[in-house]
Amino acid sequence: MDMRELYELRGSSPEVLFSPYCWRVRLALAHKGLDFVSRPVRFTDKEALAFSGQTLVPVLRDGETTVHDSLAIFRYLDERYPQPSLLGGALGESRLRLIDRLIGQDLRPALVRLLLPRVLASIDPPDRDYFRQTREKSLGMSLEAFADRDAGQAQLARALQPLDAMLKGQSWLDGAEPAGADYLIGGFFFWAWTLGEQLWPGDSPTGDWFRRLLAFCEERQGAVRRATND
Amino acid sequence: MDMRELYELRGSSPEVLFSPYCWRVRLALAHKGLDFVSRPVRFTDKEALAFSGQTLVPVLRDGETTVHDSLAIFRYLDERYPQPSLLGGALGESRLRLIDRLIGQDLRPALVRLLLPRVLASIDPPDRDYFRQTREKSLGMSLEAFADRDAGQAQLARALQPLDAMLKGQSWLDGAEPAGADYLIGGFFFWAWTLGEQLWPGDSPTGDWFRRLLAFCEERQGAVRRATND
Repeated sequence: MDMRELYELRGSSPEVLFSPYCWRVRLALAHKGLDFVSRPVRFTDKEALAFSGQTLVPVLRDGETTVHDSLAIFRYLDERYPQPSLLGGALGESRLRLIDRLIGQDLRPALVRLLLPRVLASIDPPDRDYFRQTREKSLGMSLEAFADRDAGQAQLARALQPLDAMLKGQSWLDGAEPAGADYLIGGFFFWAWTLGEQLWPGDSPTGDWFRRLLAFCEERQGAVRRATND
Repeated sequence: MDMRELYELRGSSPEVLFSPYCWRVRLALAHKGLDFVSRPVRFTDKEALAFSGQTLVPVLRDGETTVHDSLAIFRYLDERYPQPSLLGGALGESRLRLIDRLIGQDLRPALVRLLLPRVLASIDPPDRDYFRQTREKSLGMSLEAFADRDAGQAQLARALQPLDAMLKGQSWLDGAEPAGADYLIGGFFFWAWTLGEQLWPGDSPTGDWFRRLLAFCEERQGAVRRATND
């Protein structure tokens, strides 16, 4: 039997897996009912990914096939294991990519602002240097200048409004059952959660949805390990 | 043969049709290749809609069936005339509703801010009173306090970023062919256009997309009439 392996980001502890993009793939594998062996790697463990021809997680190795990038992995999984669908075909994939772009304006930067100190506290020194260099380059400023708890909370509150509005009327973002949109967006919430935070109101439609998504995941893949919140 | 009628919002001129939600339905009818008779009504022509049991356009009357609300009309059209699909099934509809919520945070309010004076100039006095009362109630402030060209342009520039990013890589928001997401979002751009404005850069991926969408519409339904921009 071929082995299925997921290369995913680890902190100082190999059991704390906090990349939002890797969580998307974990949730997608749960959706398909597929087992896998976790291969946790640090930001700077580039040699562990050399076989994939690039340097970023998530990477899924499925028998002879290697795929990277969370949405490319969603597409691969739908082609190789069609049911239940993650993307809902080409039109569903295109809408998911648009949702990802739209979510990228508030939810992702809000969480970056709020989680930066927690990421730095959860990784080893060489990863801290790597993380600082790469993120400061893409942010165009120092991590300290970007991190801002009040601004982050205000931006997060804004990002939660459309999600709360959707989840007032239905259990999952994709309707009566969870699918690609739930995992794409859910990955961001797992990121905060695994770093030891819950930054959104628990008694809200989005808070209820996150608890359902966490239960869905833990039933299939075991307890989600969180960084200790000291 | 049964008659198909679209009740849609008109300005002082019956030929200037500027409701974003009515444009969604016009574009959806073009998508399905369906003819219809336009029934332009003013904001205050409530008696013209009495048959539908409610007071807002768009209303589609298709033989014995009456449907209101743009996304409900999309669903009706997909059920009655399945190909080519607008929604892409239940999952596609759910994602479209999420896109609508996300777009509602910047694109819609940005255009409201920018277009308020133009709307007031394009409608008859009784409609002006109605428009002011209903919009001031939902905005929680006077139209004059909300209208703000600089703030609107900044918010619009933000709203265009994810659309430009999507449309750099593909011709339509829904992929290789236009579908529901193009018409849902396109309706907002027709709103500005029919009021005599073009508020976005013409030489941008979104500007190119709008021109394609306008051509798609005009090929099927004739020239789009615009308010004179005096």
